[in-house]
Amino acid sequence: MPVVTVEMWTGRSREQKRALVRAITDAMVTHAGAKPDNLHVIIHEVPKEDWALAGVMGDERKD
Amino acid sequence: MPVVTVEMWTGRSREQKRALVRAITDAMVTHAGAKPDNLHVIIHEVPKEDWALAGVMGDERKD
Amino acid sequence: MPVVTVEMWTGRSREQKRALVRAITDAMVTHAGAKPDNLHVIIHEVPKEDWALAGVMGDERKD
Amino acid sequence: MPVVTVEMWTGRSREQKRALVRAITDAMVTHAGAKPDNLHVIIHEVPKEDWALAGVMGDERKD
Amino acid sequence: MPVVTVEMWTGRSREQKRALVRAITDAMVTHAGAKPDNLHVIIHEVPKEDWALAGVMGDERKD
Amino acid sequence: MPVVTVEMWTGRSREQKRALVRAITDAMVTHAGAKPDNLHVIIHEVPKEDWALAGVMGDERKD
Repeated sequence: MPVVTVEMWTGRSREQKRALVRAITDAMVTHAGAKPDNLHVIIHEVPKEDWALAGVMGDERKD
Repeated sequence: MPVVTVEMWTGRSREQKRALVRAITDAMVTHAGAKPDNLHVIIHEVPKEDWALAGVMGDERKD
Repeated sequence: MPVVTVEMWTGRSREQKRALVRAITDAMVTHAGAKPDNLHVIIHEVPKEDWALAGVMGDERKD
Repeated sequence: MPVVTVEMWTGRSREQKRALVRAITDAMVTHAGAKPDNLHVIIHEVPKEDWALAGVMGDERKD
Repeated sequence: MPVVTVEMWTGRSREQKRALVRAITDAMVTHAGAKPDNLHVIIHEVPKEDWALAGVMGDERKD
Repeated sequence: MPVVTVEMWTGRSREQKRALVRAITDAMVTHAGAKPDNLHVIIHEVPKEDWALAGVMGDERKD
């Protein structure tokens, strides 16, 4: 049943995303006893300029 | 007051979306006694390649 | 595939919630062509005192 | 720790968004005692045609 | 129209929450030109033991 | 920066949840190149009676 939503900056490759959702699905099966059949992993890509940490947008950060 | 968020694959037509939000609004009014005035229905369209079920992305699925 | 999240005040009965999720599921099947098998409807009940409209919390509102 | 998500119609300028996330961050620090370092403010821009109020999509509304 | 969701640890007082939603509403009106009438601010309180930062749950953190 | 939200039925133990957030954090670091410092994993536990699949609530399902 679980639904996992990953909010992260835009920019990962398709291969990274595919490997990521497989690893998260495995983690849910292994540690939460979830059944894969109804286990959704949804990626929300957010532009850096729409995501602030400590009041500073991603595209303005120096780190 | 309620806020209903619909997360689904990209690709429905405007007519489908309009009919959908009306039907969901009606369902909320009929079954949850919600007042339409402050009832929001928000559609989040997610690309197939960003949505995995059972660890497999939508654009890789055979079904 | 779709995931519908309903955020509303605490307080509906189980019968109301059951009728609501059936009606929303029907709306998704009828108007968005969704397959029921992987269609989730998740209800988030939020206390009135944690939900503000126009800056006023639900438990302070006069309407 | 807090994560604040702002869902609103597409269309604000970068300056508006920057000022908005600073003000929301200040509000969280002032009123909720949050530490800025791990305080995220995420903006989800949603097209008017995907957001209904009282069953009517944003791009169809007269007000 | 906007909907602002604040996810934070359980534990703020009602007065803190009321002041917080007023300040966030003001920020949305001032900086995003939002109309207060349909502006929702929803607080999701999450127990520390259900929120991890850097892989460590809130109730296990030393800082 | 990423924020991962896990929505699942109520009922996992603290040990399961701790192991789960560590595994998801590792997956994000390994496959999405995320830095652990600002990586949040938030668990939303939802009662079975508030989560429907194919129009049937979790506490009514036979499987």
